[in-house]
Amino acid sequence: MDDDARPLRADARRNRALVLEAAEAILARDGLGASMRAIARHAGVGLGTIYRHFPTQEALYQAIIIDRTQRLVDRAQSLHHADDPGAAFFDFFTDIVENATRKKTLADVLADAGIDAKAGMSEISRNMRDAIETLLTRAQRAGAVRDDLHMPELLALLAATCMAAERNQWDRELRTRTLAIVFDGCRPRG
Amino acid sequence: MDDDARPLRADARRNRALVLEAAEAILARDGLGASMRAIARHAGVGLGTIYRHFPTQEALYQAIIIDRTQRLVDRAQSLHHADDPGAAFFDFFTDIVENATRKKTLADVLADAGIDAKAGMSEISRNMRDAIETLLTRAQRAGAVRDDLHMPELLALLAATCMAAERNQWDRELRTRTLAIVFDGCRPRG
Repeated sequence: MDDDARPLRADARRNRALVLEAAEAILARDGLGASMRAIARHAGVGLGTIYRHFPTQEALYQAIIIDRTQRLVDRAQSLHHADDPGAAFFDFFTDIVENATRKKTLADVLADAGIDAKAGMSEISRNMRDAIETLLTRAQRAGAVRDDLHMPELLALLAATCMAAERNQWDRELRTRTLAIVFDGCRPRG
Repeated sequence: MDDDARPLRADARRNRALVLEAAEAILARDGLGASMRAIARHAGVGLGTIYRHFPTQEALYQAIIIDRTQRLVDRAQSLHHADDPGAAFFDFFTDIVENATRKKTLADVLADAGIDAKAGMSEISRNMRDAIETLLTRAQRAGAVRDDLHMPELLALLAATCMAAERNQWDRELRTRTLAIVFDGCRPRG
């Protein structure tokens, strides 16, 4: 939506990344009042460059969400060949919950503006699901996660802890202690 | 807020309970379109009776939430002397999450109407917290719950599972399977 179907040239890709990064920073600072002009200034690009990549503020915000999710998918996939599949599984679970805490500001801004953060997410959500399932299967084969933990309840646990971490702004200690309980529940008994 | 400070006479108490029950039913059926007239008809009382107890629709809706929460507090307190403190702890955890699933409709209606469901809840929330802490302490003394599970993470786990159950409308199977993982995490290891 925000780009042509043609692959971006290297400098266009770099500019796009700069804009996304600046947008996150300005949005965190100014909330819904964030202006495209302030984002352009922060990114060190012209206003025209922003609008070429993101015709509307809505398209820009959605791109931020998709970009963040893609980074989580990349991270999950990079763990698919980790030496310790159990640690990889629990590390990734922790990463997602930590990310949810940071995502709050943007999600709130989007919700206030009536923008659906989930738009255009179906493919990336599928990739995320697949990446998580691979981590689960490997951790189970390694004996680090109980065999009777299936995807529906794993996704339910992820959703539950992400929602609460986001809404109640869990600090690091509460996140660590709460996830320790959930993780022990995920381990084989006895 | 909805009643005078004087204790209600028995018939007034009965009418109040009838109205609350009818309001839950009509609200579930009609959502925000629920009219005081339909609630009165369903309760078999006059419109004046409703307005005497609940001067505004907002007062009525808040009373429903407080009433439901009070019933959960009553339930927790009734479990304080259960023969099996471990079962009492886990049963109550399950009850709260199950209740959250049913509460969704009303919470949504209230949120849409800009009504704060939490208004007037501070005392009852404190009672709930105390009741939960007693269940936890008893279950720990009985060896059914690990000693290093403290109130902050227990409340975090309750909030997390309630939010997800409510938002994603967990069915019974998903609730049972997901809570089984969390509960195993709450048990002493080994």
